[in-house]
Amino acid sequence: MAMNDTSGRPLPPTPRSGAPRIGVLRSGPRDTIADVRDVNVGHVTLADGAIQTGVTVIRPHGGDPYRQPLPAASTVVNGFGKTLGLVQLDELGTLESPIALTNTFAVGTIATAMIRHAVAANPRIGRELPTVNPVVAECNDGWLNDLQSFAVEERHYVQAFDAATAEFAQGAVGAGRGMSCFELKGGIGSASRIAHTRDEHVVGALVLANFGRLRQLTIGGVAVARTPDTAMVSQPEMGSIIVVLATDAPVDARQLRRIAKRSAAGIARTGSNFAHGSGDIAIAFSTHPSPRTREGGAERDADSPSRGARGEGWGEGLRDAALDPLFDAAAEATEQAIVHALFAAETVRGRDGHARVAIIERFPDWRARLGVATPS
Amino acid sequence: MAMNDTSGRPLPPTPRSGAPRIGVLRSGPRDTIADVRDVNVGHVTLADGAIQTGVTVIRPHGGDPYRQPLPAASTVVNGFGKTLGLVQLDELGTLESPIALTNTFAVGTIATAMIRHAVAANPRIGRELPTVNPVVAECNDGWLNDLQSFAVEERHYVQAFDAATAEFAQGAVGAGRGMSCFELKGGIGSASRIAHTRDEHVVGALVLANFGRLRQLTIGGVAVARTPDTAMVSQPEMGSIIVVLATDAPVDARQLRRIAKRSAAGIARTGSNFAHGSGDIAIAFSTHPSPRTREGGAERDADSPSRGARGEGWGEGLRDAALDPLFDAAAEATEQAIVHALFAAETVRGRDGHARVAIIERFPDWRARLGVATPS
Amino acid sequence: MAMNDTSGRPLPPTPRSGAPRIGVLRSGPRDTIADVRDVNVGHVTLADGAIQTGVTVIRPHGGDPYRQPLPAASTVVNGFGKTLGLVQLDELGTLESPIALTNTFAVGTIATAMIRHAVAANPRIGRELPTVNPVVAECNDGWLNDLQSFAVEERHYVQAFDAATAEFAQGAVGAGRGMSCFELKGGIGSASRIAHTRDEHVVGALVLANFGRLRQLTIGGVAVARTPDTAMVSQPEMGSIIVVLATDAPVDARQLRRIAKRSAAGIARTGSNFAHGSGDIAIAFSTHPSPRTREGGAERDADSPSRGARGEGWGEGLRDAALDPLFDAAAEATEQAIVHALFAAETVRGRDGHARVAIIERFPDWRARLGVATPS
Amino acid sequence: MAMNDTSGRPLPPTPRSGAPRIGVLRSGPRDTIADVRDVNVGHVTLADGAIQTGVTVIRPHGGDPYRQPLPAASTVVNGFGKTLGLVQLDELGTLESPIALTNTFAVGTIATAMIRHAVAANPRIGRELPTVNPVVAECNDGWLNDLQSFAVEERHYVQAFDAATAEFAQGAVGAGRGMSCFELKGGIGSASRIAHTRDEHVVGALVLANFGRLRQLTIGGVAVARTPDTAMVSQPEMGSIIVVLATDAPVDARQLRRIAKRSAAGIARTGSNFAHGSGDIAIAFSTHPSPRTREGGAERDADSPSRGARGEGWGEGLRDAALDPLFDAAAEATEQAIVHALFAAETVRGRDGHARVAIIERFPDWRARLGVATPS
Repeated sequence: MAMNDTSGRPLPPTPRSGAPRIGVLRSGPRDTIADVRDVNVGHVTLADGAIQTGVTVIRPHGGDPYRQPLPAASTVVNGFGKTLGLVQLDELGTLESPIALTNTFAVGTIATAMIRHAVAANPRIGRELPTVNPVVAECNDGWLNDLQSFAVEERHYVQAFDAATAEFAQGAVGAGRGMSCFELKGGIGSASRIAHTRDEHVVGALVLANFGRLRQLTIGGVAVARTPDTAMVSQPEMGSIIVVLATDAPVDARQLRRIAKRSAAGIARTGSNFAHGSGDIAIAFSTHPSPRTREGGAERDADSPSRGARGEGWGEGLRDAALDPLFDAAAEATEQAIVHALFAAETVRGRDGHARVAIIERFPDWRARLGVATPS
Repeated sequence: MAMNDTSGRPLPPTPRSGAPRIGVLRSGPRDTIADVRDVNVGHVTLADGAIQTGVTVIRPHGGDPYRQPLPAASTVVNGFGKTLGLVQLDELGTLESPIALTNTFAVGTIATAMIRHAVAANPRIGRELPTVNPVVAECNDGWLNDLQSFAVEERHYVQAFDAATAEFAQGAVGAGRGMSCFELKGGIGSASRIAHTRDEHVVGALVLANFGRLRQLTIGGVAVARTPDTAMVSQPEMGSIIVVLATDAPVDARQLRRIAKRSAAGIARTGSNFAHGSGDIAIAFSTHPSPRTREGGAERDADSPSRGARGEGWGEGLRDAALDPLFDAAAEATEQAIVHALFAAETVRGRDGHARVAIIERFPDWRARLGVATPS
Repeated sequence: MAMNDTSGRPLPPTPRSGAPRIGVLRSGPRDTIADVRDVNVGHVTLADGAIQTGVTVIRPHGGDPYRQPLPAASTVVNGFGKTLGLVQLDELGTLESPIALTNTFAVGTIATAMIRHAVAANPRIGRELPTVNPVVAECNDGWLNDLQSFAVEERHYVQAFDAATAEFAQGAVGAGRGMSCFELKGGIGSASRIAHTRDEHVVGALVLANFGRLRQLTIGGVAVARTPDTAMVSQPEMGSIIVVLATDAPVDARQLRRIAKRSAAGIARTGSNFAHGSGDIAIAFSTHPSPRTREGGAERDADSPSRGARGEGWGEGLRDAALDPLFDAAAEATEQAIVHALFAAETVRGRDGHARVAIIERFPDWRARLGVATPS
Repeated sequence: MAMNDTSGRPLPPTPRSGAPRIGVLRSGPRDTIADVRDVNVGHVTLADGAIQTGVTVIRPHGGDPYRQPLPAASTVVNGFGKTLGLVQLDELGTLESPIALTNTFAVGTIATAMIRHAVAANPRIGRELPTVNPVVAECNDGWLNDLQSFAVEERHYVQAFDAATAEFAQGAVGAGRGMSCFELKGGIGSASRIAHTRDEHVVGALVLANFGRLRQLTIGGVAVARTPDTAMVSQPEMGSIIVVLATDAPVDARQLRRIAKRSAAGIARTGSNFAHGSGDIAIAFSTHPSPRTREGGAERDADSPSRGARGEGWGEGLRDAALDPLFDAAAEATEQAIVHALFAAETVRGRDGHARVAIIERFPDWRARLGVATPS
């Protein structure tokens, strides 16, 4: 039975995580970004005393994005962040690498690892072929993790890449290991929503959630901790959220930027006003197998005859007037992914006795607070 | 007594409008943009059968913005709109005219009126002095209003300008006369919130609210009309929202853009995902009387000796790390202003028998739905 | 015989205007924007004493752009300008109106005229169909023209629209009537260049040239007036340049923005550093008849069955790696169009005894200065 | 004696390099970016067979930019590049690290080195204090340098930092070691120009020049190699140019972005149309010692009492209407810096027998071609 009848906003537990369910749209079978076919996610988690960090890799398809780039775009909601790769991604409207997530100090190491990895697969990179544009996004996990240990190494990228699967874990794993969210334990969350245009398309979101102040946390429209007994001294917010959106809809880079911008609505509904110190960045890509998505491929593939200057046809693209269902799905999947991150995360203790407590430990009465039915 | 205890989000009626109160921050005495000193607003309302439209003018201070420009910036959340004046406003970071709001077809007429008005006050404009950059924003009120009547005339701008006052009306007035919001009657709404940095600063919002689908309407976190009995066929969304933010904080144009972007959080919390057909645009300005804000003045004032190339000092500006309270205030004031627009609006009938019903008529049980206390 | 042997940069007279020829690329047969098939240009010129102004209309194809929008994008090199329509053009990547050029004070009047004109052709606009986004760009012709006369009227838009032809005049005509360029007579100029990718494509430029200081004027790499005898007191630069680029290449809005940005190279080579007071704005569109370009059409055409959410196929688009020839053509056509504006313009005398002298009158020795061969 | 009399554009040799002198503005004493007080530059050059690469570090002042950030902004003329750090730099309008230049594959390594270096100087970074935003820009030197050797190591950053001096070398040094420019040897170039507003201000430029096709090379308006004998098969352009602009003028981040955009004019005048494959990026900062520039300092300095939310005053800033001399200086300094890079560079032979020949070797008759006087 759904509670919270007054609002008409039912918050049934999700089959997967027990987390409250956000919004009204249908999810894909996994309710993760992996509902977008061929998208896989891998983690390496480093958890040892003062080291609480890791790497998460999103593989946009099963092949090599350098050979088969995808249409992509990004949006910077608030730019207090050190993401690498957006300049070229936005200019060309293409993603030509996996997307790696890690801590702020590890961006350089992971970028180097990604270049080496791409070169190993394409030994002509940087010689006869163009260089590769690695996309590395980050959040600051320095509350739990000793950033100054520089614990993330190049090999961790390869391990996370090799571990990529559709059945990936969420919560305090991978790049999310040391992240804080609303002064609770945050980390990796993911969700998906179905968009009905003429066809059905999936929009999947994966977040690295490391933002927010507890007094602002809102789940399904309900302020979780606004009562006096939850008052606490906030640390200055030095967080961030990275949102990765994937869709199988046939949309181009300009349209993907429009989709990416809708993640801001999902973030806002969890209570954030995009704080000064938060790097709130979204990256969206499409896996739709149009020739357009493979434009770089022929150019770069030594075994293919050059196709000359033209592509082979862009296929059938969605019209902008048909994007609203994708916008709704992007916003709702983002909001749900953040909630998943909170509810999947376990309590983590890290450097200098710092801890971030899981939401379900901090608020054992969360079902009552949120008006969520107790599972029968 | 505040209800909705579960969420801890009290929604007491506001003294002014009876509308639900949003959020947690304190308002200024009027709970409108006019709580920012010297900001005044004037309306001309045209309501006659198929003509349901008008003009609203925001005067940023009591003087002439052409002589005393203000730091300003804009952000385009979704650009399906025809606003005039943002190119120069963003390049120079200054507002040098009032901000006029009207219907989509009247932008040109009002722009011309603003130029004539500025020339009348400054007869050297376009001769010895630079031209003036009028800022005119619009929404499409074509559901209620017969746009093709071109009912707005130049004189209406002057009338609205002359009518500007701190005690302005909200709802189905001025440019808001024919606007629809969440398939209900929308229009002009305004609110203010106090931001505590070292000093107290006010952030005021005024919205022209003409966006949203009823099934998404959310007030104070509560979905208003998600139950089956409120199902209705939606018109395709062809709306928009214009947000004007004013503050007395000493912030520059770059910081004002950051503030303007936070209006998106307020819009999102009312249920919008920034639909394709919605022109969602925010403009922010500061009234702080630093010499910086008057930089254009000496240049343009024939009676002043030239000050040469330098300004006289920028005064004390806020640091970016102190902006979070302003961000929170901007988001919350925007959300509240939208709610005020809905609750202040009366039902309007316009062209071809079209009508938009006031929220309090459409949902006579709104207090129960929203968990708002009945006034004693 | 071409002179200027040292540089290897021949500057033969052009067949059309006698103006120096810029660069190395081949032109289309007219060396104007009308070399892009179906692009036509019409002028209304108002020249009577203190009134020296007008309207120029670029029709992007022979049909109705509201029914058949084109892919389009803009770039703002320097934003001291009042152009209307770019917010929506950039969001949607489409042009759905002609492009009108006029003086700064007439933007509103022409915008209203364009809306009326579109409504007359599509009576459901603003009722069952979306509103129209008129694109109106402007420069300040106030040195020669009495802006305060508000001489441009709505009917002038219709007249210019109806006068559109592939064989349009250049120089002190249309919107260019009162414009100044490098303290000489400026106005309308146009040029075209051929880009070789796999196929040949044309890039045409039309400029409204109203910028620059004489001491910086550079033609074909040669500073025209840097010697002491050409010293003169400059008026403060209050100019602008609008560049309209058209191409028949199959490029989308993102690529058109890249093309538009290359106009800056052409402007720079004439000596401009994009002065503070200059609104330097470029708009690019593609006339390629792919279904993508007609996406809005079916939606808006009452006689067509709805095609649902999908387009019919985007056709074969150019790959980004094939864009360099288009970039070169855009830069060179822009530079040539500015030179054409200067050399086609006649001396004009306007308000208060102000005059702008044609370059060929001001520098009767221009062939020697520029190293251009005397026609035999 | 200056030649090229026809054009009035004298091209005397510069005292420093013998390179042609560009434009008309006066230079500072060094004609480098080090004419902006306290700006120093250091190189590490790796030149050993197939390894031809390096690192260049621009220190914006003698102190620690993390403690004393500077107002800064960037512009992306063409975004085919992998620069790190611009997201935050543009959001906050501040530079809080040195600017490092290196090859495309070394961005990650140098970023990590910069973080370690900042942490060593500020051991609370990433713990009690925010993380640091390293700015690393790159060009692809893969024609001469074996990128796959990953020859640049973290220690090279420290060495370049420690080597920073006002009397730095130009040409095939530091990050410029392996760079190609117009199919000739490129690399590091620098120049300065004096801007006269009310006071004199210096604008200095430093470029990492790795762009252009020989047939387009233009120096002082003269096409260097357009004659048939210089025809050659071009490699596909995979270059880039990074422009770093410094000024001592009191300008804020918004104004610095405007200044940075003028570098495009300088680049264009050397013949570039901002090719598809070229990452053309400019970063500008101001060294003016206003309290504004030190805003982050007090916040981060453990020994300073907190100043609360306000700065101590922004000092006297330049008005936008006074920026034109800075714009002219930025464009001209950029163009001169590119010319300096070409003329300072020696011929370099690198991997697989590849070579890039110095311009003065490739065109021993360059003085005649360019109309430059032979030094007496």
